[in-house]
Amino acid sequence: MWVLGGTAGGAIAQGVAEGLKAPLGRVEVKTFPDGEIYVRLLDDVKDRDVVYVQSSWPNDKLVEMLLTLAALREHGARSITAVVPYLAYARQDRVFQSGEGTSAAAVLKLIAQFADRFVTVDPHKEHVLPFFGTRALDVSAIRLIADHLVEVGPDLVLAPDKGALDRAEALARELGTPVDHLEKTRLSGTEVRMAPKALDVAGKVVVIVDDMISTGGTIATAVKELKRQGAAKVVAACTHGLFVGGALDRLAQAGIDGVVATDTLANPVAKVAVAPAIVDALARR
Amino acid sequence: MWVLGGTAGGAIAQGVAEGLKAPLGRVEVKTFPDGEIYVRLLDDVKDRDVVYVQSSWPNDKLVEMLLTLAALREHGARSITAVVPYLAYARQDRVFQSGEGTSAAAVLKLIAQFADRFVTVDPHKEHVLPFFGTRALDVSAIRLIADHLVEVGPDLVLAPDKGALDRAEALARELGTPVDHLEKTRLSGTEVRMAPKALDVAGKVVVIVDDMISTGGTIATAVKELKRQGAAKVVAACTHGLFVGGALDRLAQAGIDGVVATDTLANPVAKVAVAPAIVDALARR
Repeated sequence: MWVLGGTAGGAIAQGVAEGLKAPLGRVEVKTFPDGEIYVRLLDDVKDRDVVYVQSSWPNDKLVEMLLTLAALREHGARSITAVVPYLAYARQDRVFQSGEGTSAAAVLKLIAQFADRFVTVDPHKEHVLPFFGTRALDVSAIRLIADHLVEVGPDLVLAPDKGALDRAEALARELGTPVDHLEKTRLSGTEVRMAPKALDVAGKVVVIVDDMISTGGTIATAVKELKRQGAAKVVAACTHGLFVGGALDRLAQAGIDGVVATDTLANPVAKVAVAPAIVDALARR
Repeated sequence: MWVLGGTAGGAIAQGVAEGLKAPLGRVEVKTFPDGEIYVRLLDDVKDRDVVYVQSSWPNDKLVEMLLTLAALREHGARSITAVVPYLAYARQDRVFQSGEGTSAAAVLKLIAQFADRFVTVDPHKEHVLPFFGTRALDVSAIRLIADHLVEVGPDLVLAPDKGALDRAEALARELGTPVDHLEKTRLSGTEVRMAPKALDVAGKVVVIVDDMISTGGTIATAVKELKRQGAAKVVAACTHGLFVGGALDRLAQAGIDGVVATDTLANPVAKVAVAPAIVDALARR
């Protein structure tokens, strides 16, 4: 096995290579003045089993991934495992309104054109994996996030809405706390109303957990509401920290006491390394 | 036949629909705060033969294309023709240095996953078309560019280097002028030395033609050299005007007398509509 990291996967690739005691390959990636991406494998991959690590967000990183996977195929890799720590487009996992494309399926089919196996971390919904084919696998970062949260001393885990309850239940099990969920009504892309569900949070340390934080609008609204209800501390945890449009500032202004994300995406609060979960999954197969 | 345009193909799609007397379909494309692209077909495409027009540059437009093609397939289009006026990554058409990916092949294979036929305009090299498969076709904008250049009264057509001579010869044939080429040595991505090849340009109107202009470095250097040698006017013509990094300013400062591009990409000098050439090709099949 031989591990390779793209520009959105380098740190995880290094952790995976160490965990697997496998060599870390080198790839040159640069961007031309017109924005086109240049990919050159600096080691001979012929007849090697290659694990390539790259998150597929934003679009430039998705294109880099597809070009690199194609290069690995072109240069004769024996098998190619695409490890995509953060899988973009995972929320468009079905046709919500007539005529929409199931973009999650499209992206997985594109990756499947050049990769034999697929591994991702905490996809928005697991049911997207078969779009890749049978050799797709998801791993959970929940235990690693829980390990990191122990020192916060959580009393209660909350899901931002009922649909995210599974993940919150898994985290609560790891932490040994009760679990509940907020009621969310989405008003627009960034505006959310949190119904004032009566929760017994007075004096408690509350962890809100979701698979990803994008603009942070939902969490910011929840933080204000929970503080209003007397919560001692509110911490947000997620696997994928996109933090677009000033999300971390928005959360700070809402009075949040801490934000924890994994390193599936680069950001200032990427405190939890997911490489161990990926190594376990790859070693098991 | 039913024509659809993406956000990098709308004007050409309209021209193609008019030329084919075919209906122009509607597609909603928007970008989420995190940069993900949303695609929704607003007309029923089931059992229709669809012509989808979209240039694949920059990367966001390539991703939009792939997601839209996938949506057309998902919603049951009978056949899908991808018309890609400007095909990005066409210059990476072979392995120049060991380990490089043939990105042109990768991109065409990705498009082929969801499209049945492929049409492009003046690709950097025609030999990339078979990477798509057998049902790929390129059309030339040279006659349309020539029609536009007649009023300039050209005396001589020049290729910026020997490798671009075929295209210059085709344009010279259309214009009834002689043809020659400059000698180019690329020093870096944007720096180019033009060898002072002795050309009889004194008092003449010279057209430099290339398939694409990116940073404009090559052309700017050539303009200065030709003016030094006494050219009366120097005009640059290209099919694909990328004009990145202040290219049009650079050309103006070099003393250029005019720049002509087609509308395969949106830019301030996109004066030549390529739709007629595409319509001819589609009607012929």
